[in-house]
Amino acid sequence: MLCFGTLVLKFSREMGKIFHVVSLKHLLLVSVALNVSLILRVINISEKKILHSNSAHVSKNIQLSSSSLTSFANARIEAQNGEERVINLDHGDPTMYEKYWQQEGDKTTIVIPGWQSLSYFSDVSNICWFLEPEFAKEVVRLHKVVGNAITENRHIVVGTGSTQLFQAALYALSPQDALEPISVVSAAPYYSSYPSITDCLKSGLYKWAGDAHSFKKEGPYIELVTSPNNPDGFVRQSVVNRNEGILVHDLAYYWPQYTSISFPADHDLMLFTVSKSTGHAGMRIGWAIVKDTEVAKKMTKYIELNTIGVSKDSQLRAAKVLKVVSNSCESSSSEGENFFEFSHNQLATRWELLRLAVQKSGQFTVPEFAPQFCTFLRRDFKPQPAFAWLKCEQEEVNDCESFLRSKKILTRSGKHFGFSPKYIRISMLDRDQNYNLFVQRLSNIISS
Amino acid sequence: MLCFGTLVLKFSREMGKIFHVVSLKHLLLVSVALNVSLILRVINISEKKILHSNSAHVSKNIQLSSSSLTSFANARIEAQNGEERVINLDHGDPTMYEKYWQQEGDKTTIVIPGWQSLSYFSDVSNICWFLEPEFAKEVVRLHKVVGNAITENRHIVVGTGSTQLFQAALYALSPQDALEPISVVSAAPYYSSYPSITDCLKSGLYKWAGDAHSFKKEGPYIELVTSPNNPDGFVRQSVVNRNEGILVHDLAYYWPQYTSISFPADHDLMLFTVSKSTGHAGMRIGWAIVKDTEVAKKMTKYIELNTIGVSKDSQLRAAKVLKVVSNSCESSSSEGENFFEFSHNQLATRWELLRLAVQKSGQFTVPEFAPQFCTFLRRDFKPQPAFAWLKCEQEEVNDCESFLRSKKILTRSGKHFGFSPKYIRISMLDRDQNYNLFVQRLSNIISS
Repeated sequence: MLCFGTLVLKFSREMGKIFHVVSLKHLLLVSVALNVSLILRVINISEKKILHSNSAHVSKNIQLSSSSLTSFANARIEAQNGEERVINLDHGDPTMYEKYWQQEGDKTTIVIPGWQSLSYFSDVSNICWFLEPEFAKEVVRLHKVVGNAITENRHIVVGTGSTQLFQAALYALSPQDALEPISVVSAAPYYSSYPSITDCLKSGLYKWAGDAHSFKKEGPYIELVTSPNNPDGFVRQSVVNRNEGILVHDLAYYWPQYTSISFPADHDLMLFTVSKSTGHAGMRIGWAIVKDTEVAKKMTKYIELNTIGVSKDSQLRAAKVLKVVSNSCESSSSEGENFFEFSHNQLATRWELLRLAVQKSGQFTVPEFAPQFCTFLRRDFKPQPAFAWLKCEQEEVNDCESFLRSKKILTRSGKHFGFSPKYIRISMLDRDQNYNLFVQRLSNIISS
Repeated sequence: MLCFGTLVLKFSREMGKIFHVVSLKHLLLVSVALNVSLILRVINISEKKILHSNSAHVSKNIQLSSSSLTSFANARIEAQNGEERVINLDHGDPTMYEKYWQQEGDKTTIVIPGWQSLSYFSDVSNICWFLEPEFAKEVVRLHKVVGNAITENRHIVVGTGSTQLFQAALYALSPQDALEPISVVSAAPYYSSYPSITDCLKSGLYKWAGDAHSFKKEGPYIELVTSPNNPDGFVRQSVVNRNEGILVHDLAYYWPQYTSISFPADHDLMLFTVSKSTGHAGMRIGWAIVKDTEVAKKMTKYIELNTIGVSKDSQLRAAKVLKVVSNSCESSSSEGENFFEFSHNQLATRWELLRLAVQKSGQFTVPEFAPQFCTFLRRDFKPQPAFAWLKCEQEEVNDCESFLRSKKILTRSGKHFGFSPKYIRISMLDRDQNYNLFVQRLSNIISS
């Protein structure tokens, strides 16, 4: 225990440097002596330090001060009653990112006067006439800075989140005069919302056809390729590979906090969202990068019919946030901490804690990933996805979601992802106090 | 001409008082001598006065100053080349309202810090979990202030404009397991987007079935009642009236700038939008007032599937705008000019000008309305809709839209509204310089 205590203190010092990368392999060697709750206590001390070190900035801004101190106080009260509390990790609510944006203060604050953005139109010269030019500019810049997607000679279509763009893509890619709806497939485990979004209106244009692995039907089809994949985090390619296939690449998680950037993606139709890149899910802003002009036109038409465009307020705010992210990457000394370094390190810590908890419990497994070189962070690392795809290894547990619900941990069952209910998806992006309570509780689930 | 000149000067003095209500009946008596372009020149002088009188405020705010002066300068250049310019009044883009919001200065300015609204969730205790409580509060307050809708014991569902809510209503009201899609009807002339929105995905749940007047099919149906109606401005009730009918009331224009408020509307499902009430179309915010809990749940589900909620930024901004509108109604002296008085007077002037131009031209007609008492403005007035439903009376003109296009005036043909192409819809909500150029050009279309 002494040896482990020293290790924990070393770990805490690293935490104090705001989660600088550490090799934690040696921690695994002493897994027998693991005490996750002790680690968490140490993390709490580190969090207090971070909060305290921010106080100079905080005092300049009363709004931040009161809000973050209140939440800090609430977090303490919750921690005391932690054992009673339900931990909801069913949704991928990206509140983990609040910490970074609070730390960066008013850099991303936006002021919108009352007479701004009254018109439906943003840029009548653009195919996507409701796309704010400033937002488009910052999307292009960020992809260049990160190197994760080609934007030259492509159309950008903005959407009310990438969910709307996914539907716009289905509308644009489906033949309008076919005798039957085109099949929409994705390799299981696939994003749980794909089937219900595709089929909710019983469209005559397209129809959910399930797992791409078992798709045998002849003729045209649309394959959704989510890479890295939601829920399991693996990098993916299409699996059907027939010449009548049309591909939609959902690259919501192709950012350096989650996975190595190995090349700028260059697919026909790629979807991105601020919800998962910067954490601003409440903005409801996504974008598509589209090669074909006719497809971009039809996607725009769908969004016109569906919502007559996309909130200008959120586009302007997203433009500012993306700008600050790019600035942080280009000159970290004067422009604040590199956004991706910060969030990468947060997730690295969370994944280490999860693996430690899983090891201590002995009842679960999580995916093992191979490291890969990241052209953006310029080092090798293993994927650290936004979701953990956890398997209940106990023979008697067939429904892992129910099992964890009995422990007051809400997750999403594998069955919603076209997979076994022995698996569950867990959000890795919740606030610290929730996440820490979760790993603590998980580590205490031991064989009876 | 002298007599008319005096009249015009009187009219211009009234304009100088920022469009206070005047009885203009006597103007019609001298219609033979009408010179619309002279009136417009006088209005231009009045506009300059208004802009000048705002300069004290403007100087406090560089952003407003530069933006409005630039547009003012541009307007002058455009006016010089007015005859060459295409006037686009096809869309109901509500830029007329910019003037009021500029006049009110920073009352509706909103500041959003970077760490706000990261979560998908707004209020997990509400059926509509993405509804910002502050927005809901201001919606309820405004309806109480104006007296145009009952909100007590109703659910509020927020949408990305009322267009999304219309689709949410179709989803919620359609039987999920019917053998064939439910019929969706509306009395012609109906809103031109209803058919294309309803049928764009070839839904198996619902199907556009055309003009409600000629709908004879037995069984359940959904009837859309737009009141006041888009395009013609008449107050409406359902026309099918069979017991299996389900009604959706689109009340986007049931506000005192357009029509008399005669009672608080109390229908099962009512749709409203900021685009037409306050003019903030770029926000993409609408709301539904819903009696039935299950319907509210299903509408929420649709919006969850369609866009995972609604922009928080725009909801917060809309809350502030509605608050300022309510404040302006409750104490006009300290809280700025009553929003509805201001915009009512703007539209009153525009309708007078339109009727004068129509009379001078002799080639067109517009609807005649009966006056009705308004419980909000506490006086009788005739409807002054957001659109003019204009008819080409020339025998040789069958396609009014093409005819006006040849005069470089873009409008929407009656055929899109399930009606005769001898009719067109014209937006009454464009900016002053565009609208004034339009009436001037219309007045000059005379029989050859």
